[in-house]
Amino acid sequence: MRIRNIKNKKEILDNCSLVVKNPVEYKGKWNSLFNNNNPIDLEIGCGKCGFIKNLALKNQNINYIGIERIDTVLAIGIRDVKEYNNLYFMNYDANLIENVFDKEIDKLYLNFSDPWPKERHEKRRLTSSNLLEKYEKIFKNVKNIELKTDNREFFEYSVKSLVNNGYLIKRISLDLHNSSINDNILTEYEEKFMKQGMKIYFIEVYKNE
Amino acid sequence: MRIRNIKNKKEILDNCSLVVKNPVEYKGKWNSLFNNNNPIDLEIGCGKCGFIKNLALKNQNINYIGIERIDTVLAIGIRDVKEYNNLYFMNYDANLIENVFDKEIDKLYLNFSDPWPKERHEKRRLTSSNLLEKYEKIFKNVKNIELKTDNREFFEYSVKSLVNNGYLIKRISLDLHNSSINDNILTEYEEKFMKQGMKIYFIEVYKNE
Repeated sequence: MRIRNIKNKKEILDNCSLVVKNPVEYKGKWNSLFNNNNPIDLEIGCGKCGFIKNLALKNQNINYIGIERIDTVLAIGIRDVKEYNNLYFMNYDANLIENVFDKEIDKLYLNFSDPWPKERHEKRRLTSSNLLEKYEKIFKNVKNIELKTDNREFFEYSVKSLVNNGYLIKRISLDLHNSSINDNILTEYEEKFMKQGMKIYFIEVYKNE
Repeated sequence: MRIRNIKNKKEILDNCSLVVKNPVEYKGKWNSLFNNNNPIDLEIGCGKCGFIKNLALKNQNINYIGIERIDTVLAIGIRDVKEYNNLYFMNYDANLIENVFDKEIDKLYLNFSDPWPKERHEKRRLTSSNLLEKYEKIFKNVKNIELKTDNREFFEYSVKSLVNNGYLIKRISLDLHNSSINDNILTEYEEKFMKQGMKIYFIEVYKNE
């Protein structure tokens, strides 16, 4: 994604009450921030935040946290954000996720993640074994990951990586918008791709142990 | 597939020395039929036999067995068959596979299997849990299955079923003919679909235990 820089991004992030400034402080006690014991679902790479904002509106009994590594992108996503009781954001890197959560996440969403197609960048892919190992430590009980992408090679890579790291398949579709899956919430990317008639690949996996 | 009946199918099958008439007799001793200890690979649903004939020509150090349930199809496939040292056929039903093999198969090929799209026919799909359980008993050591199909729903079903029955993924492609997989051997179906520009889905899985 090409991103146009916005000058006041720091100001936007600093002034938004939904942006957690020192997420490390909440490790192991995110429920205290939400002030309830509802499940906590996470989106890594929440981009312009449309997906997670819609989820939070739809499911008032689930808490949501959106993580975005690129400050400009997150600033654009949240600059007009309204108040939520069940949604927080952070400008953070997935590689350091273990520092922020400790066995407290119920579900992880990965939407249109950067495919990092070059072999030498494999470790940066959000479904690399390297990162899947880190996610292991943030899940509460059942590990549950939902992924969608328009990138065929990234999808093939992700299915293989998830399965070979012990995940089982709950749902899979190679054409999400022509499937029986009807609880899908669109991301900004997805709306654009849909209009272009592109196929969206989808998989939901879980691990019990 | 619509099949035109051929009148002399019984004669063709009876007279072909490569067709094993009483396969049950060879259970546990297929190597004695091939007269060597080379690996034995199996294709269930070999159709018009082009795929397995090519494999047998290419890999002289592997033994091949093609199984086809529909006598007419097998008769068409073998009516002009030449002599092979490493290839046999049988007109048999995959549901009874346990009666024919006992821990002696190295690899199983499933090519363009009937998708049996109706829910009530699930058990007939060659990748149903029901059948995967039967295959378990025919493999020698590592269980290895290679599958290709043009049918998206059957592929989604198969990936889920294979993975949830304990298989790991060795290779996967959602567009075999535009992938890095270059040892592919075409089936008759595949050649037709290629000309129509259709995508071929491919997966190779294995299980060590």
